[in-house]
Amino acid sequence: MREEATAFVPGHVTGFFSAHPADDPTKAGSRGAGLTLTDGVDVTVEPATETTVVLDGTEIDVEPVATVLETLDVTARVEADSELPLGAGFGVSGAMALGTALAANRVFERKLSLNELVTIAHGAEVQAGTGLGDVVAQAHGGVPIRLEPGGPQDNKLDAIPSRARVEYLSFGELSTAEVLSGDTEALTAAGKEALSRVVEEPTLSSFMYASRLFARDAGLLTEQVMETIADVSAVEGQASMAMLGETVFALGSGLSDAGYEPSVCATHPAGAMLR
Amino acid sequence: MREEATAFVPGHVTGFFSAHPADDPTKAGSRGAGLTLTDGVDVTVEPATETTVVLDGTEIDVEPVATVLETLDVTARVEADSELPLGAGFGVSGAMALGTALAANRVFERKLSLNELVTIAHGAEVQAGTGLGDVVAQAHGGVPIRLEPGGPQDNKLDAIPSRARVEYLSFGELSTAEVLSGDTEALTAAGKEALSRVVEEPTLSSFMYASRLFARDAGLLTEQVMETIADVSAVEGQASMAMLGETVFALGSGLSDAGYEPSVCATHPAGAMLR
Repeated sequence: MREEATAFVPGHVTGFFSAHPADDPTKAGSRGAGLTLTDGVDVTVEPATETTVVLDGTEIDVEPVATVLETLDVTARVEADSELPLGAGFGVSGAMALGTALAANRVFERKLSLNELVTIAHGAEVQAGTGLGDVVAQAHGGVPIRLEPGGPQDNKLDAIPSRARVEYLSFGELSTAEVLSGDTEALTAAGKEALSRVVEEPTLSSFMYASRLFARDAGLLTEQVMETIADVSAVEGQASMAMLGETVFALGSGLSDAGYEPSVCATHPAGAMLR
Repeated sequence: MREEATAFVPGHVTGFFSAHPADDPTKAGSRGAGLTLTDGVDVTVEPATETTVVLDGTEIDVEPVATVLETLDVTARVEADSELPLGAGFGVSGAMALGTALAANRVFERKLSLNELVTIAHGAEVQAGTGLGDVVAQAHGGVPIRLEPGGPQDNKLDAIPSRARVEYLSFGELSTAEVLSGDTEALTAAGKEALSRVVEEPTLSSFMYASRLFARDAGLLTEQVMETIADVSAVEGQASMAMLGETVFALGSGLSDAGYEPSVCATHPAGAMLR
């Protein structure tokens, strides 16, 4: 047993998605597309007699992290340092689950494969209702397109072969669990439409365009987000809403050009990795 | 049309493999496992009226590169700068094909997806007989396990969730085409055995062990390679032979510890990427 191990998991903003429930959480998930981000979460795991989870210095309960540790049959102290806010559409809970799986596998020498670890983290996230597609996207890196839902044994991924500077600005939280438990018919229809657009033309431009249409048609835009996206469009920029958070993300310098003071990062060329 | 674009593709040493021919080169390929390397190839593509390919300052013919450009229906000047020798088992031809596909897609705004570009490069490489699994491994990054052969539409990948320092030393070339056109029965049997060992325990240790057994049982070891691997074993290090080249690679400081003066790099956490 090692003393500790640390994994970095990129953040992930989903531009559009459709939900695909299933009885088995490792087969459930979402179709859609998003950007993985150089801003992300460092997760350090060390053996402990009792499990505790700390995010940016504060002890919290993160159900998918607890589930991952139980699945690996270990107790540990998990310390996460996040450059991104929790609950605002950046996949922080997915990052914590996946980072815990990677680091715990190393510390406790569990000898699982990457796909097995991703499956465990994805299933834990879906079961908790905190996300449907972040984990598999974060394991892939780049600008992943989720063509088929589920963990690595079942899903099908492609990607947009591009990199970009990314700006983002968060106004607050939206509950993924709440949105997903409501009426998702309009959302699913809009998600399918957006996916077929991006499959037809896998470029960043078409991704941003499809994401904006999706946010509107799925009825998820808040007043604040709508205004901000309009401000970016007014200066010829491309912005959309992170699913699911009251968060706007833009390519290049879209938000700065519109007079905002956003956080700045870039698409992350790699998936989650041990430090 | 852009002026030029550059892609970086990691090197790839295969530890073991089995060959899986098929009429369609995008479905043919290999099962096996290997290490992608931080040492790799930068490929720059710029539009030109006639196609030329330059590797480290010297004009050469690289069939898979020509095929990729033809498939994308373009003519271009392709300049590759490689940290690795050609023909010595580092996947340099695969890297040139994949880098050309990524960079040409960008320069000529072909709007293809990542999977489509990988399929084109993989098919071109298989058709030329210069490699069977490097391209899909190089697109993935890390320490990929090729569970099923072929391009992204057909194959199935997993990975060993580890990183390592890697040392390597090349004594010369081996012709992939020549080995693959010979009797491959022993090789295929040894490749299957090695893969099931690594699937059972996806760790770097078991990968190196399986690779050594494979090199021996497939009858591919040269005198020089055998001696060098033995020297590394004698100092408790782990080394094996790169498939296919007269090249030895080792984890950590295996070759240095044995008194050699190897090149030093590490596993590459990401797949091929635009610069």
